[in-house]
Amino acid sequence: MKSLKEKILKEGVAIGTEIVKVDHFLNHRLDVKFLEEVGAEFKKRFKDDEINKILTVEASGIAVASLTAPYFDYAPVVFAKKAAPNTMTEGFYVAEAKSFTKGTVSLLRVSERFLKEGDKVLIIDDFLAHGQASLALADLVEQAGGKVVGVGAVIEKGFQGGSERLRAKGYRVESLAVIDNIEEGRIIFK
Amino acid sequence: MKSLKEKILKEGVAIGTEIVKVDHFLNHRLDVKFLEEVGAEFKKRFKDDEINKILTVEASGIAVASLTAPYFDYAPVVFAKKAAPNTMTEGFYVAEAKSFTKGTVSLLRVSERFLKEGDKVLIIDDFLAHGQASLALADLVEQAGGKVVGVGAVIEKGFQGGSERLRAKGYRVESLAVIDNIEEGRIIFK
Repeated sequence: MKSLKEKILKEGVAIGTEIVKVDHFLNHRLDVKFLEEVGAEFKKRFKDDEINKILTVEASGIAVASLTAPYFDYAPVVFAKKAAPNTMTEGFYVAEAKSFTKGTVSLLRVSERFLKEGDKVLIIDDFLAHGQASLALADLVEQAGGKVVGVGAVIEKGFQGGSERLRAKGYRVESLAVIDNIEEGRIIFK
Repeated sequence: MKSLKEKILKEGVAIGTEIVKVDHFLNHRLDVKFLEEVGAEFKKRFKDDEINKILTVEASGIAVASLTAPYFDYAPVVFAKKAAPNTMTEGFYVAEAKSFTKGTVSLLRVSERFLKEGDKVLIIDDFLAHGQASLALADLVEQAGGKVVGVGAVIEKGFQGGSERLRAKGYRVESLAVIDNIEEGRIIFK
């Protein structure tokens, strides 16, 4: 997605060799008009697929998923939670997601009421890095007996191997911008 | 907002005397089409106000704020963070928000780059309970030298005093549904 790459180059900041900071439009401040274009692009990539649910994880995935849903006939969005809230009194599916950047392991949870057998799920996230969050989300879908139609990431850090891990498990991956490398503060796309 | 009250009665679950669980459309599963109506209603309430920024807090506020922004000429949405991320390397405003339900204190942070002197800010959140999150968000706006135009909450738990606390400080509050009481599993609106 050309406009996304231009935006990353214009507004993104490379930190060290592994981190791209895009908090001007994606992770802290949200450019909603632009994220609608991102949603339209996901629709273009998955236009022939039957999708009845969009799954993401709090927090940064929520805006992207919410602004993508209108293009998929307002498919319900479900966001996995990283902590068990006091209102989550019933059963839930749970999967582990390791964060390499933070050095922590999160437990992602979705209520059993919101993922069902036969669901055709598009997984959406802001970043695809090592792929741990997406693998955990796919695990939740499959625990429920649903099918992962694909994984859509706004930005993929290609050098961290997430898409290879997902494809090795048979999942289709569509990343709207793939960063190949970060060299001396420069972001280099594939 | 009539359709919202109907939705709360139909899909909401009262737990004890203090908690209303609306995770079917607002807090875990998101009904995006309905949240667009919520956004339109906020515009109706604040139609004569000059607003150049929408501020919320992760996680559940993000969807509501993102789907409200289009009605305010795509004003940028900023969501306060509850943890300091490793990419937040520069200065930020910080304010304390106590959670009565969880018994914890969060530090809400917004980068100094995203709140400015002269900003006219609409604070949006999913719930208004004791008002601690909204008061902290208002504090962040004022630290930056901005003005809080108002606080818009989807659901207010009127019996927890948040709107009184906010109004006592001079803030305008618009709640789209005000719950007066929860009695024996029944949700009673004002």
